[in-house]
Amino acid sequence: MSVASLAPFLIEPLVRAALLEDLGRAGDITTDAIVPDHLSTTTALVARQDGVVAGLDVALLAFRLGDGTIEAEVARPDGSRVSPGDAVAAITGPARGILTAERVALNFLCHLSGIASATAAMVDAVRAHRARITCTRKTTPGLRSLQKYAVRVGGGANHRFGLDDAVLIKDNHVAVAGGITPAIERVRSAIGHLVKIEVEVDTLSQLEEALAVGIDAVLLDNMSPEDLRRAVAMVGARAITEASGRITLPRAPAIAASGVDLISVGWLTHSATALDIGLDHRR
Amino acid sequence: MSVASLAPFLIEPLVRAALLEDLGRAGDITTDAIVPDHLSTTTALVARQDGVVAGLDVALLAFRLGDGTIEAEVARPDGSRVSPGDAVAAITGPARGILTAERVALNFLCHLSGIASATAAMVDAVRAHRARITCTRKTTPGLRSLQKYAVRVGGGANHRFGLDDAVLIKDNHVAVAGGITPAIERVRSAIGHLVKIEVEVDTLSQLEEALAVGIDAVLLDNMSPEDLRRAVAMVGARAITEASGRITLPRAPAIAASGVDLISVGWLTHSATALDIGLDHRR
Amino acid sequence: MSVASLAPFLIEPLVRAALLEDLGRAGDITTDAIVPDHLSTTTALVARQDGVVAGLDVALLAFRLGDGTIEAEVARPDGSRVSPGDAVAAITGPARGILTAERVALNFLCHLSGIASATAAMVDAVRAHRARITCTRKTTPGLRSLQKYAVRVGGGANHRFGLDDAVLIKDNHVAVAGGITPAIERVRSAIGHLVKIEVEVDTLSQLEEALAVGIDAVLLDNMSPEDLRRAVAMVGARAITEASGRITLPRAPAIAASGVDLISVGWLTHSATALDIGLDHRR
Amino acid sequence: MSVASLAPFLIEPLVRAALLEDLGRAGDITTDAIVPDHLSTTTALVARQDGVVAGLDVALLAFRLGDGTIEAEVARPDGSRVSPGDAVAAITGPARGILTAERVALNFLCHLSGIASATAAMVDAVRAHRARITCTRKTTPGLRSLQKYAVRVGGGANHRFGLDDAVLIKDNHVAVAGGITPAIERVRSAIGHLVKIEVEVDTLSQLEEALAVGIDAVLLDNMSPEDLRRAVAMVGARAITEASGRITLPRAPAIAASGVDLISVGWLTHSATALDIGLDHRR
Amino acid sequence: MSVASLAPFLIEPLVRAALLEDLGRAGDITTDAIVPDHLSTTTALVARQDGVVAGLDVALLAFRLGDGTIEAEVARPDGSRVSPGDAVAAITGPARGILTAERVALNFLCHLSGIASATAAMVDAVRAHRARITCTRKTTPGLRSLQKYAVRVGGGANHRFGLDDAVLIKDNHVAVAGGITPAIERVRSAIGHLVKIEVEVDTLSQLEEALAVGIDAVLLDNMSPEDLRRAVAMVGARAITEASGRITLPRAPAIAASGVDLISVGWLTHSATALDIGLDHRR
Amino acid sequence: MSVASLAPFLIEPLVRAALLEDLGRAGDITTDAIVPDHLSTTTALVARQDGVVAGLDVALLAFRLGDGTIEAEVARPDGSRVSPGDAVAAITGPARGILTAERVALNFLCHLSGIASATAAMVDAVRAHRARITCTRKTTPGLRSLQKYAVRVGGGANHRFGLDDAVLIKDNHVAVAGGITPAIERVRSAIGHLVKIEVEVDTLSQLEEALAVGIDAVLLDNMSPEDLRRAVAMVGARAITEASGRITLPRAPAIAASGVDLISVGWLTHSATALDIGLDHRR
Repeated sequence: MSVASLAPFLIEPLVRAALLEDLGRAGDITTDAIVPDHLSTTTALVARQDGVVAGLDVALLAFRLGDGTIEAEVARPDGSRVSPGDAVAAITGPARGILTAERVALNFLCHLSGIASATAAMVDAVRAHRARITCTRKTTPGLRSLQKYAVRVGGGANHRFGLDDAVLIKDNHVAVAGGITPAIERVRSAIGHLVKIEVEVDTLSQLEEALAVGIDAVLLDNMSPEDLRRAVAMVGARAITEASGRITLPRAPAIAASGVDLISVGWLTHSATALDIGLDHRR
Repeated sequence: MSVASLAPFLIEPLVRAALLEDLGRAGDITTDAIVPDHLSTTTALVARQDGVVAGLDVALLAFRLGDGTIEAEVARPDGSRVSPGDAVAAITGPARGILTAERVALNFLCHLSGIASATAAMVDAVRAHRARITCTRKTTPGLRSLQKYAVRVGGGANHRFGLDDAVLIKDNHVAVAGGITPAIERVRSAIGHLVKIEVEVDTLSQLEEALAVGIDAVLLDNMSPEDLRRAVAMVGARAITEASGRITLPRAPAIAASGVDLISVGWLTHSATALDIGLDHRR
Repeated sequence: MSVASLAPFLIEPLVRAALLEDLGRAGDITTDAIVPDHLSTTTALVARQDGVVAGLDVALLAFRLGDGTIEAEVARPDGSRVSPGDAVAAITGPARGILTAERVALNFLCHLSGIASATAAMVDAVRAHRARITCTRKTTPGLRSLQKYAVRVGGGANHRFGLDDAVLIKDNHVAVAGGITPAIERVRSAIGHLVKIEVEVDTLSQLEEALAVGIDAVLLDNMSPEDLRRAVAMVGARAITEASGRITLPRAPAIAASGVDLISVGWLTHSATALDIGLDHRR
Repeated sequence: MSVASLAPFLIEPLVRAALLEDLGRAGDITTDAIVPDHLSTTTALVARQDGVVAGLDVALLAFRLGDGTIEAEVARPDGSRVSPGDAVAAITGPARGILTAERVALNFLCHLSGIASATAAMVDAVRAHRARITCTRKTTPGLRSLQKYAVRVGGGANHRFGLDDAVLIKDNHVAVAGGITPAIERVRSAIGHLVKIEVEVDTLSQLEEALAVGIDAVLLDNMSPEDLRRAVAMVGARAITEASGRITLPRAPAIAASGVDLISVGWLTHSATALDIGLDHRR
Repeated sequence: MSVASLAPFLIEPLVRAALLEDLGRAGDITTDAIVPDHLSTTTALVARQDGVVAGLDVALLAFRLGDGTIEAEVARPDGSRVSPGDAVAAITGPARGILTAERVALNFLCHLSGIASATAAMVDAVRAHRARITCTRKTTPGLRSLQKYAVRVGGGANHRFGLDDAVLIKDNHVAVAGGITPAIERVRSAIGHLVKIEVEVDTLSQLEEALAVGIDAVLLDNMSPEDLRRAVAMVGARAITEASGRITLPRAPAIAASGVDLISVGWLTHSATALDIGLDHRR
Repeated sequence: MSVASLAPFLIEPLVRAALLEDLGRAGDITTDAIVPDHLSTTTALVARQDGVVAGLDVALLAFRLGDGTIEAEVARPDGSRVSPGDAVAAITGPARGILTAERVALNFLCHLSGIASATAAMVDAVRAHRARITCTRKTTPGLRSLQKYAVRVGGGANHRFGLDDAVLIKDNHVAVAGGITPAIERVRSAIGHLVKIEVEVDTLSQLEEALAVGIDAVLLDNMSPEDLRRAVAMVGARAITEASGRITLPRAPAIAASGVDLISVGWLTHSATALDIGLDHRR
């Protein structure tokens, strides 16, 4: 399996912060008042919608931080397709801890599974073609690592994680530099040898200029399927081609049919709908 | 204006964290390589969709942290309705700082404006009735204060901010306590005098029991408009009534017509679509 | 038991910070130089004064963070009344860890037990009446959650935990709003349905105005027992009544005899004397 | 002036944390609802008790973080003796920011002024003698630097700031080492040349042994004034002498009359009463 | 200028932490006791060795955090070559703040200038050839961004900033994967399109295999100059070539003469000697 | 053993920060793609140079945070002398965790062992004399506690840990105070009784003045061995003598022969070469 793991010490600060955010200064006053300390319970995370699970480890950590003795049995790990009624995991332990951590666990799980599910839907839509679905930097502040992980879980590929791990020359950079050629040249002399360069182009003539200077990837912004096809033909094997610009599920197949290598989709991370997963209490 | 302000020291840690998340260890390597230190530019945050602006101060702080000399002129402050092409604010200053902070600023602004816009749509849909739209604890981890603020900006009301500032007795609490009456009684003896108690009920007979004991608010979960109407009649002035359970924009008017005081909507914070606002560079 | 628990992840950051504060950059240089690594010891937390124990879990966490193998046997958990010589808990393990964490553990335990003991004394003083003792926001910066917990352990009730979980309209708010009525009205339109409103009044005519508009609770500030009695009679069941203003142990019974629901006491958290508990080493 | 200053970046994290603790997730909902954004006000920090001011800079920082445009005019800086009615500082600026930060500012100021005032009272009580008043490590977790500063402001001297900046060999260390002599010897070979060694002794024969080995200071624990006098005579100029053990204001003069160099007083930091200082609003 | 800037909010947490580390709980007790509050002074950062300046902004921030009114006039910004006696910058302001921040400022400046100077020496040594000098991940924990910046200031290029921004397949990865070919294939299917792949090879036959599969860069580990020359010839334009393995200043020219694109040097960041720069006080 | 231990909660934040610094937002993408989740491996930390081990616990914590099931068997704990080929510890567990944490573990271990080894070399060089080797505040920002620990492991003694735990009056303080005598007097009245005073002197006449007032230690700055000898004779038993000023390994014996108590060496912490220790994978 090639999906990168999430190191526990990367997740833990986020889960702790989310629990503190929910518990505030006084904790779960409802549960503390009603539920006896010694009461144990068995619950299950259950899907209420079709989709792909992502973030289960994050959710389980929320429960374990709620009470160190809570145990989980995973039925459908990250990447599993689920249908309404499918149990994702059984959660057993002190009722207080489970009730207190429930919302935080679900907030992570539903959010990340929503992203994975949206990604999987896009991946399915272009399965007949070579194009991979990729995300952007249009993420929810504070959650980029988790959201990019959910995109991978859904079968997508990751774009840049930030401004520092690859070069993406946009139209404003080109304007400042006075052209695509000087922009690429300035960048090339400044960056390390393991940094790739991608250039955003709006027209085929800009594409021609970029290819002449030499780049690793080209972002074809807001082009029609026909122009994308022409662009792919022009590029050949000289660069990776990426289509971009408000690409919806219905439009995706036509875009993919152009032969581009990648389709980047901002809404996967900024506007995907949460997947409905609930916690069923079995008494 | 009754919308609570956002104290700068509440926002600042979130904006700093988001900038660090985007800049990583090496910063904006594209901009640093291409854009000269001394170059100034004028840009504008421009709406590309109909909606309600929220989070402008957060976005402006991102720019100012990117470069302390960046200046902003606000055209449409939080709460303003915007249409495609409307300028929200002009941002002037060093091109480096503006380009570097652009994505973080937009990620906050589009996310929060999306929530405010979704809230405003719901508020509009029930305007003929007394019901107010309110949010839930189904928020994105780390952003609860900002998201709840965006709900207020959109004309909505806030529900609990966390587990500690009000009591909400849910079905699992009732099951553990052995009934609605003992659950309420246990809570009442444990909480402070400024904490309100709300109880979730699924049936009218549960509602009757809760009213008999006395509560501040009642959450009527997944009831039909007819049952809601009956519930409202039963309650009279004895408690605040809140309808809840997968309430969509089309279903909202019928729910509101039941006469409930509040309609709580989870998707406002967990699944609202980002509002498309971009940064236009004027050269 | 209605005393809210303290979630470990709420306590842990405070205990770690206190240990770092005490250990500085070089650690416990006395103990490190003198005490061999392998030496075990048995000690006991012993009360040296009459009072009520609070914060034992916090103290035990300090020991466990000092050395993960330290074990504790609790004899008198939080809420227990103790007399001089009573063992609160036995602490066994590596002498180095115990000696290093001793002061931090005691600083928490004595401080919180002092608050619980002071609260219990006030609670005892008004036992003949309906009034409950409650705390204020006059807390020691950084320790509010712990201090409010100690008040609960001592038998008291909690007031607001902060500026955000309930409304308390004070004289300055009234002055700005131009009267009690407009102040309450402005607040009512701004807050969520689970937020209660309390108003501070200095006179019976102010009280009359507040009751006419309708509020959840009324803070009767610096009134004589006679005025308090009149106020209680005026209020009837329409609101919770709270007496406030430099209320000492000797004055408490007379205040309580007025029939108020609550007596709020700032000095419980800002000026209670630490309870003397020591660590006895048994060799 | 020999009172060490408090570097702003030492104070700032504490003040920010205290404001966040009080404002929670929703901020000052009362003030936000009632007080218009543009309203300015003039207020004054006014003493309501006799005492010594300490922590004014901390309080002023709380106001400035509440609103960057708040201005202060200091009338009685740290170290000033005040009487009821004395203005400590005038605070002018936006009413919202002042009301929001008021409690946090006062919590710091009253707490630290209480410590300074208690210290000053002890200093006054022993003024006829050479003894200086010093504090201990029995401080409130998280506030040690501020509390030790307040002791200096009150005219006291500081003892160790933590376990790492000086050696204090206590009875348990002596027991583990098998005597005072081996304890001192072990320490001496382990510590740096700028670290002083103090030994706690309960009897004059222990004192004799410590002096024979050579130490910098000796803590005379729970000795009668007579024994203290004998101890001081025995020590001569060979070490600094410190009296310790539940020393109250009435007992202080007799202790000081013994000729000891220092009297250490735990209650200054763990049990001093807050000094009553309020914020008067002038309309 | 292609040297990436250091965003202030990236530096600030490091400088604050360093100041807190040096000031501890009591601050600069020597300076506070001796230097009057109002005293101003003029000082200069002066080089005492030949080298290249790096980290001046970091040092100046330390002074400014020490006292906000300290002003600096920069004579030799980052990247300047200096000789003994050369003034790097004049620092003017309150003597207290300058003395208190002096050591932290110098610790950053001397450390980073040492790295820049070592890099510049290596760059000079290979100037006759095409090879660029680059750093590794063998950095001092916590300072990677700053150290990599210093390498750029010295004329070097940056390698990976961490494990996440490029792939470097090492011998252990090859062993686990069962060969270079499967290792590259596994990676290729897992990573994003803007991530480059480098493979470490020890022999020319390994190199042949890597080139056959196709990679972006090849790390030629511990090869003799002759083997490096052969490797460079084999590679041609198919990949970037990097020589690695205990490359010292004397050995660098021979390595560079092999025609490799890059020479990576671990000791630049883990063992470079600090550049001697002092603060001269002018009275 | 008199070497102070390193409390785990002192180390842990540094190790976590270093892992986060290396793993960035995406983690170890090479290892995640190539190494199967279930694969275990046995590795060994092996010295490749003569030296002294320091920081092994820090390195082991890095591995354990990488994967909680990694186990270590220590062969040569901190303080051990090692030669090329000596195994320091065996590390067994999941290959993913070991490979991911390897560089961070080695960065700490090699850096700290380098300092311990340099210290040990200096200690060996002066073994014939009474002088102890001590470090300074010229440390790498963020690592002072660890570096000072490494100096102790190498047989050295620690100087001040910061500006707050001892007084060191330097030439600039003397200049401001108007002489050595007023400088010492100002300090003496301001500091606590457990704080020692050291004065830096450049000449024997300054030394005479300092001794006349009385100080705990004297820093003899940049003196020739002859002057040091004279200084030591002048001082007698009245103070601790410390030689300082660019003291290299070859110059150390002559300095030590002067009879000084301490030789402080800045380069131990700011310029020591990392000790080469590698991780050998055994398949």
